[in-house]
Amino acid sequence: MSKPLFDRIALIGLGLIGTSIARAARANGVSREIAGTARSQKTRARVRELGIVDDILDTPAQAVKGADLVIVCVPVCASGAIAKEIGPHLDPGAIVTDAGSVKLSVMRDMEPHIPDGCFLVPGHPIAGTEQSGPDAGFAELFVNRWCILTPGAKASPEATAKLTSFWQALGSHVDVMDAEHHDLVLAITSHIPHLIAYNIVGTVADLESDTRSEVIKYSASGFRDFTRIAASDPAMWRDVFLANKDAVLEMLGRFSEDLSGLQRAIRRGDSETLVELFTRTRKIRRNVIEAGQETAEPDFGRMRATPSDQD
Amino acid sequence: MSKPLFDRIALIGLGLIGTSIARAARANGVSREIAGTARSQKTRARVRELGIVDDILDTPAQAVKGADLVIVCVPVCASGAIAKEIGPHLDPGAIVTDAGSVKLSVMRDMEPHIPDGCFLVPGHPIAGTEQSGPDAGFAELFVNRWCILTPGAKASPEATAKLTSFWQALGSHVDVMDAEHHDLVLAITSHIPHLIAYNIVGTVADLESDTRSEVIKYSASGFRDFTRIAASDPAMWRDVFLANKDAVLEMLGRFSEDLSGLQRAIRRGDSETLVELFTRTRKIRRNVIEAGQETAEPDFGRMRATPSDQD
Repeated sequence: MSKPLFDRIALIGLGLIGTSIARAARANGVSREIAGTARSQKTRARVRELGIVDDILDTPAQAVKGADLVIVCVPVCASGAIAKEIGPHLDPGAIVTDAGSVKLSVMRDMEPHIPDGCFLVPGHPIAGTEQSGPDAGFAELFVNRWCILTPGAKASPEATAKLTSFWQALGSHVDVMDAEHHDLVLAITSHIPHLIAYNIVGTVADLESDTRSEVIKYSASGFRDFTRIAASDPAMWRDVFLANKDAVLEMLGRFSEDLSGLQRAIRRGDSETLVELFTRTRKIRRNVIEAGQETAEPDFGRMRATPSDQD
Repeated sequence: MSKPLFDRIALIGLGLIGTSIARAARANGVSREIAGTARSQKTRARVRELGIVDDILDTPAQAVKGADLVIVCVPVCASGAIAKEIGPHLDPGAIVTDAGSVKLSVMRDMEPHIPDGCFLVPGHPIAGTEQSGPDAGFAELFVNRWCILTPGAKASPEATAKLTSFWQALGSHVDVMDAEHHDLVLAITSHIPHLIAYNIVGTVADLESDTRSEVIKYSASGFRDFTRIAASDPAMWRDVFLANKDAVLEMLGRFSEDLSGLQRAIRRGDSETLVELFTRTRKIRRNVIEAGQETAEPDFGRMRATPSDQD
């Protein structure tokens, strides 16, 4: 058996992402040992029960001791405080990364606390589900998904290369880009879709209860698709919108402009504009499927009928 | 074997919905015979090949002869012309219905052409996928889905009851309501979700090609969910927005107002408002699952990894 890539990985945060990394790292033999910590006693106890890491520690400072790779998996606005806490306890040569959906703010908040001789390579695995917590994680989460690394002033080419190998070992493809570009692309790919899903589900939540019940009953006509991403972890997403405010507001501006145009086309009965748009968008779906990022099965391959009859 | 509910069903339009009805009606033995017609020669030929109806006719007028149930499955703005064409050829006592997503306009356009002694009971099966055409149909499409009937001046209680039995035999639950209410509820359940999905996918289609490729690559972070409904049939959806203009614009107004509030909360860094909304929306997801209208599997139960490696 070849030597594992890392000797000891420390996971700070043991939710969906942290425990999926733990499971995947173990399944793929990328580390001799895996340590972990979580803020809540309940989460630590649950992960101990699940037996998916070798060592559960009470604090981030304890968890990073002896680790050559530290992965911070917490809501992005908490990463600065974590970096401050672990900075003095990092082993020389340790690589520090994270799994946050925003990269400029994470870089800005973490870099000042990374001591010389250690390396910071912020990262973002583009993977997840609408569920959260340690029971939601699974080892295959990262397979065939992209992971973006945004090395900055505290990175080194060797640290970036080693982290690239790590994510590839978990089944991911890796791209390297600058943090600002990441934040702009993810604003439109991820943050705006979540924002408008949260928004429309919120509009429905505000309807009077009779109408709301009907919308839920008839949700297979479109609405239910939006409820999935609008069920994502509230603390994580609050932080994303606050930390990537500028890019989100910029992309939201474009979305709203386009929506006004569409509204005008409907008001005027401009059927060519509608058909032209709806034909272009159909092509984008095909591109997503061709890029291997979506199933070609109709309706996401969802069960064609739910087993229980609630009528 | 008990006598089938109908003697001969005529399907006008043989796309996803028409052929799914044909398959489901045959599978459940609800009609002695099934006839069908489609505007395009190619579709008629394909359905003949598929062998899912007993009789393929060239025109709607021919198709409805001898039918005791006629189901019009065409884009909603075409239903008036179909009604005009078939009116003089309907058998006495025939029940006419449709499968359109808008009901007030269908009622207004079809009613004048239904002769005395025949019955019009507009209907809307809340079921479908993003695919279209005769090959996309399947017999289980309506199982555990709702079908809404909106009987008006040309209906009778007996016709509505018989059509209710028909949809129940196909596996659906049936609700009866007035057409105006239907159009308002479906505007928010279905039409606005489609509109904003079309809109965001359109925003992406307009990005310069480098950025567009990146959005497609990283689409598993949220965007890909929207591409599904934005891949729906263009002609069908053009008609929906034109035919249900007032309700769509009314609900779009609410959505946009709420979006402005959310934009303001992000700009101001109002984290309580964000967490409060994101927590409420999570509950709606649970309600949809409890209503039997969605799978509880994370990520729609989509394959966790796509088999092909496009890297």
